[in-house]
Amino acid sequence: MASLRDIVTSASINLLSAFGFLMAFAILRIQPFNDRVYFPRWYKKGTRSSPTRSGAYASKFVNLDCRTYLNFLNWMPAALRMPEPELIDHAGLDSVAYIRIYLLGLKIFVPLAVLSFMVLVPVNWIGDTLERAKDLNFSNIDKLSISNVPDGSKGFWAHIVMSYVFSFWTFYVLYSEYKVLATMRADYLASETRRPDQFTVLVRNIPPDPDESVSEHVQHFFCVNHPDHYLTHQIVYNANKLASLVSKKRDLQNWYIYYQNKFERTSKKPLTKTGFMGLWGTKVDAIDHYTSQIQKLNEEEAVERERVKKDPDAIVPAAFVSFKSRWAAAVCAQTQLCRNPTLWLTEWAPEPRDVYWDNFAIPYFELTIRRLIIAVALFFLIFFFMIPIAFVQSLANIEGIQKVFPFLKPLIRIESVKSVIQGFLPGIVLKIFLAVLPQILMTMSKIEGYPSISALDRKSAAKYHMFILVNIFLGSIITGSALQQLKTFIDLPPTEIPKTIGVYIPMKANFFITYIMVDGWAGVAAEILRLVPLVLFHLKNTFLVKTEQDRYEAMEPGSIDFPVGEPRIQLYILLGLVYAPITPFLLPFIIIFLAFAYVVFRNQVINVYDPKYESAAAFWPDVHKRVVIGLFISQLLLLGLLSTKKIGRNHFALLPLPVLTIWFFMYCKGRFESGFIRFPLQEAMVKDTLERATEPQFNLKAYLKDAYMHPVFKSSDVEKSDFTFEEEKSPLVATTRVATKLSPDVNSSFPVQSDA
Amino acid sequence: MASLRDIVTSASINLLSAFGFLMAFAILRIQPFNDRVYFPRWYKKGTRSSPTRSGAYASKFVNLDCRTYLNFLNWMPAALRMPEPELIDHAGLDSVAYIRIYLLGLKIFVPLAVLSFMVLVPVNWIGDTLERAKDLNFSNIDKLSISNVPDGSKGFWAHIVMSYVFSFWTFYVLYSEYKVLATMRADYLASETRRPDQFTVLVRNIPPDPDESVSEHVQHFFCVNHPDHYLTHQIVYNANKLASLVSKKRDLQNWYIYYQNKFERTSKKPLTKTGFMGLWGTKVDAIDHYTSQIQKLNEEEAVERERVKKDPDAIVPAAFVSFKSRWAAAVCAQTQLCRNPTLWLTEWAPEPRDVYWDNFAIPYFELTIRRLIIAVALFFLIFFFMIPIAFVQSLANIEGIQKVFPFLKPLIRIESVKSVIQGFLPGIVLKIFLAVLPQILMTMSKIEGYPSISALDRKSAAKYHMFILVNIFLGSIITGSALQQLKTFIDLPPTEIPKTIGVYIPMKANFFITYIMVDGWAGVAAEILRLVPLVLFHLKNTFLVKTEQDRYEAMEPGSIDFPVGEPRIQLYILLGLVYAPITPFLLPFIIIFLAFAYVVFRNQVINVYDPKYESAAAFWPDVHKRVVIGLFISQLLLLGLLSTKKIGRNHFALLPLPVLTIWFFMYCKGRFESGFIRFPLQEAMVKDTLERATEPQFNLKAYLKDAYMHPVFKSSDVEKSDFTFEEEKSPLVATTRVATKLSPDVNSSFPVQSDA
Repeated sequence: MASLRDIVTSASINLLSAFGFLMAFAILRIQPFNDRVYFPRWYKKGTRSSPTRSGAYASKFVNLDCRTYLNFLNWMPAALRMPEPELIDHAGLDSVAYIRIYLLGLKIFVPLAVLSFMVLVPVNWIGDTLERAKDLNFSNIDKLSISNVPDGSKGFWAHIVMSYVFSFWTFYVLYSEYKVLATMRADYLASETRRPDQFTVLVRNIPPDPDESVSEHVQHFFCVNHPDHYLTHQIVYNANKLASLVSKKRDLQNWYIYYQNKFERTSKKPLTKTGFMGLWGTKVDAIDHYTSQIQKLNEEEAVERERVKKDPDAIVPAAFVSFKSRWAAAVCAQTQLCRNPTLWLTEWAPEPRDVYWDNFAIPYFELTIRRLIIAVALFFLIFFFMIPIAFVQSLANIEGIQKVFPFLKPLIRIESVKSVIQGFLPGIVLKIFLAVLPQILMTMSKIEGYPSISALDRKSAAKYHMFILVNIFLGSIITGSALQQLKTFIDLPPTEIPKTIGVYIPMKANFFITYIMVDGWAGVAAEILRLVPLVLFHLKNTFLVKTEQDRYEAMEPGSIDFPVGEPRIQLYILLGLVYAPITPFLLPFIIIFLAFAYVVFRNQVINVYDPKYESAAAFWPDVHKRVVIGLFISQLLLLGLLSTKKIGRNHFALLPLPVLTIWFFMYCKGRFESGFIRFPLQEAMVKDTLERATEPQFNLKAYLKDAYMHPVFKSSDVEKSDFTFEEEKSPLVATTRVATKLSPDVNSSFPVQSDA
Repeated sequence: MASLRDIVTSASINLLSAFGFLMAFAILRIQPFNDRVYFPRWYKKGTRSSPTRSGAYASKFVNLDCRTYLNFLNWMPAALRMPEPELIDHAGLDSVAYIRIYLLGLKIFVPLAVLSFMVLVPVNWIGDTLERAKDLNFSNIDKLSISNVPDGSKGFWAHIVMSYVFSFWTFYVLYSEYKVLATMRADYLASETRRPDQFTVLVRNIPPDPDESVSEHVQHFFCVNHPDHYLTHQIVYNANKLASLVSKKRDLQNWYIYYQNKFERTSKKPLTKTGFMGLWGTKVDAIDHYTSQIQKLNEEEAVERERVKKDPDAIVPAAFVSFKSRWAAAVCAQTQLCRNPTLWLTEWAPEPRDVYWDNFAIPYFELTIRRLIIAVALFFLIFFFMIPIAFVQSLANIEGIQKVFPFLKPLIRIESVKSVIQGFLPGIVLKIFLAVLPQILMTMSKIEGYPSISALDRKSAAKYHMFILVNIFLGSIITGSALQQLKTFIDLPPTEIPKTIGVYIPMKANFFITYIMVDGWAGVAAEILRLVPLVLFHLKNTFLVKTEQDRYEAMEPGSIDFPVGEPRIQLYILLGLVYAPITPFLLPFIIIFLAFAYVVFRNQVINVYDPKYESAAAFWPDVHKRVVIGLFISQLLLLGLLSTKKIGRNHFALLPLPVLTIWFFMYCKGRFESGFIRFPLQEAMVKDTLERATEPQFNLKAYLKDAYMHPVFKSSDVEKSDFTFEEEKSPLVATTRVATKLSPDVNSSFPVQSDA
């Protein structure tokens, strides 16, 4: 076990490296040529453009103003300054809800840490188990943990009572946060301006009709069953092939532009090879080659476009049906239409940009089969993923590499390189697997057939959470592969499992402290530096960008990586809840992580990310559920640990806690969840009435006409559809937020502009 | 272990006793004076009246026609003869669905039995384990069971394969039966004539309003949020006290009539004591006493009636809101109205007679607390019920009885009586507990706050099913109290549990065969005899009945005891599924039970029961779920049993089965369940349109005016509200069923009338 000094050393190293990242960030961000990497959100919103000062040429790229280097940490208060309503307006409710997860963690753990250090640390300290056991290696940290309390001590009552206090405090925070989020969501939906998805319902599993086309069938069905409310509908085309042609064309166009630029700079006809990735094949003139390729694709695309529009088989049995009022859309989304509940399935339509177009054609039976297969696959992925990894690791040895890449032979022959490869390669294979894991999980979610990107993100997060729970949390406690763990769990009685794990928990505190620093602190610091987008942007800027428009498109602001980020926060919250009554010393590390991440992500949300969609915090029920799961696990583990402490049957005093936790979960589910799934008729009616009064002449049909058109059918200019801009310009109800949008207070957080 | 001969003896005894019951039934039912006990359904329907033949006086009471005694079993084909559509019309869909549970069992087990006897019995027979183990007592039955197959034998593959065949066959039957029931329900709802619940939604948790009464608040809310559809509403009074006064008065009136009759017969003023139950206190003139008591109650009732109508506190925050069309009611029942999803909760209103009036005032938070408490209480009831029973048993010994009832002393002194008491008393205490258990479970369900009697029945059945599963099924296999079992399960690894139980399963086959005969066969035979109602009817008829109307009310046709009956069937189905691959010899006993019960309950449904409500088979999803649970348990137990048979890892070939079962359950749930909860808009629209075309002038508001009035506000004459009769006379759509209602074919099943 590591001593206090080890921890301090490790903490200093990690603090220093995080500090290094921050320094780099502070310097890089105030350079004008990085402006689009660190402030893309403002470019996307149109409130910022390239720095075009009239000063020296150099100052266009490098910041020469020394004063700005002095207060290089001023992004932190700036990030914290923007008030929440404005932040919702600026970045959307999803982003705000996401950074509130960190806030939730802080609200839980700051009081928990204070209480732990006031009550539990003294109790642990006066226990003298570890001092008496002279032959054991122990550190001061261990003296602060529950291990130091002697078996059968009355001191354990402190842990039992505090566990109740901790749980009830967590209940309180979770409940009030859920309530706040539910209100925020309801307010957000109520204050929103007109949006196509408010009037639209996604209808799936439309049964085939021998006499009518899908479009006619939909129209007749809704004219009959919603006679007073049906407005219009849009059918869905299976344009997957067309979409792949379009994206292929875009790739080719990039290459074309690259060679064009090269030609302009060097005045020498660039050549390329026709084979894969330009790596082999006959050499040809690059510009001609890509021109002809693009030409060919253009023709293919035109043919395919015609085919999709005419071929009845290209029409998917799904449609977006729009209604005359929000009330009618809310009614249709929430009710069962057909006697057979697997036909004419309705749900609230996702935002147009949130639609995942590939998943509309799956019939109900196939859908359930897919979910079964994915559930089984997920089980195997979680518990048996080490088997293929080990297999690849056995292949990825020196000999294997020499065979595949013979040109590397001389390099590998060097002894030092060889030993590095042999030492690191297996680890790298695992790292690569872990890096592509989110992608694998996303593919699995896509196979499950969810119709919107936000739903896919949520489902992937759920899968990743399970993976982390089993393979990182349990896997670190009970060392050994998940497969071995599975065997252990199956062979142990249910009461023994928490006991077995609980006993290991205090011993692993140091490991997890290091983990929090390495993965948590450094990870967050790396997030703010945005190394990969930085490099990518400058590469693109150098080789592809010609016009201002190109530069606009070269920015890749990214967005919150919910399927990966959220389960990671949940791991830290779980660790905090588990260790709060056992090794309180771990809590400050988690608090630092949460606070740091909160500031960093607030900065990213304000300055960087461009959300892919807006689901109005639809993921909060999942967040809530996973914190409750963490709490439940922590209670079971404490129960298991205490049952080994020879305190008679006193540990049964903890038994009501898990029952209460389940009840709390069900209560909150009933109380709040439907606010995240359904749209209450009362709210819909209020908005409808207001709108009828203010804009009686509005042509809703024209407004909705092309809202749910597959993106490939829109020309790239129309891609950012007009209405979103139109809305922003003329919101239905004027809010004060719009007025404050460009207040000086806000602008002061962007040093470059305020300097201008 | 019992030998084949023991089983045959036991079977003969049980068959004989069942035969005795049937004989008694056959003779009793054709006596005219029992006509109202065995054919009350027809009296309730108004198609049969007291036999008033002009013949001899005796023949009014005793059947003197010898011919009818000869073919005394002709009720059986008569019971089977009525076709299903007619039966639905005659007794309602609930009854038909209930007897279809037996049919479901038959459909599962007849092919299973044939297959088992063709495939598994030979495999078991040629195994010679039991013959080689000479020292073991074994019977021919055991030679037919899986115990006879030697460890490690390839013969177990037969059991594995057959387990798949059995499961898939069960899936098929369950699926097709669910489909049939869903269609039957949809057809039933579609063919139904106008009923108040089609237009009405139950709204609960109406928030208090400082300025408006509940009634005004409801009206304004729905006028705003369902402006085109809202018709009227009825508020709910808290009339529980009034209802108890009314029921008390009815009791007193019965006593009054009893003494009045006595007086008329004996011409002697009857006396009574004023104390409890007329057992002690001062003697007074009975008729005067009860007249004054009734008078007093009348006054109290009038005061309370006025109070309830005027006191705003007597109004419960719930209402029945009616709409102009079925479509609007279906919409309102399925959608969320208010931003806070725990307010303005809507659900499809139960039938007026199905409403459970006491449960409307519970706010959401209290409701969840109640459910938590009941869940914990149910857990303790199931696992710890033996503790209070044992306590009472320890009190209920000879000495205790002597103390409480000193006058019994001389009787108890007799040695033989003493030993009988000592031997039977503990058993009787347990029997009494088991007899009142359904009542306890029903009270628990009432505390949980369900608003309709049908829901209460379903929830009680679910609780009873769990009790039977733990205390009868598992309790019989692993002897010992449920508490000990709980300890066993907690201390065993999850993989060991099916193993431990699985090993005991083959040994307990004989016990369960006896159980099926004693509890199943004899129970069904006792059901048809209706001994208790028979005695009660004749007591009432002698002491209370004066007019034809009294006699009508003295009939207690009863109804299907769903909360007790359904879980019992599930126990037999579970036994069948568990033993099908292990001891196929048990299957014929179950098949006989199911077939016999099917005929008996068909007779009861046709001739006896008067349903309390009509939920249109809303309980079928529960039935389906419990059969699936049984199947799941049987698969786990077979897996556990085979894992002890030393066949390597071959028993893992069974692992996909439980996964498939879960998937099957979820598939069916998604495919059918909403048909049992929601009312599809398409169907509602069809009925609305039809009705508007046929009866454009119908005054719906007047029709719905008093539909949902608390029964105590209706005078007893109005109690059977007019509209139900009106409907029956003029159905919206004329069906052929009405025409066949009184066809000779049907009447032939009632010997007394056909003789007239």
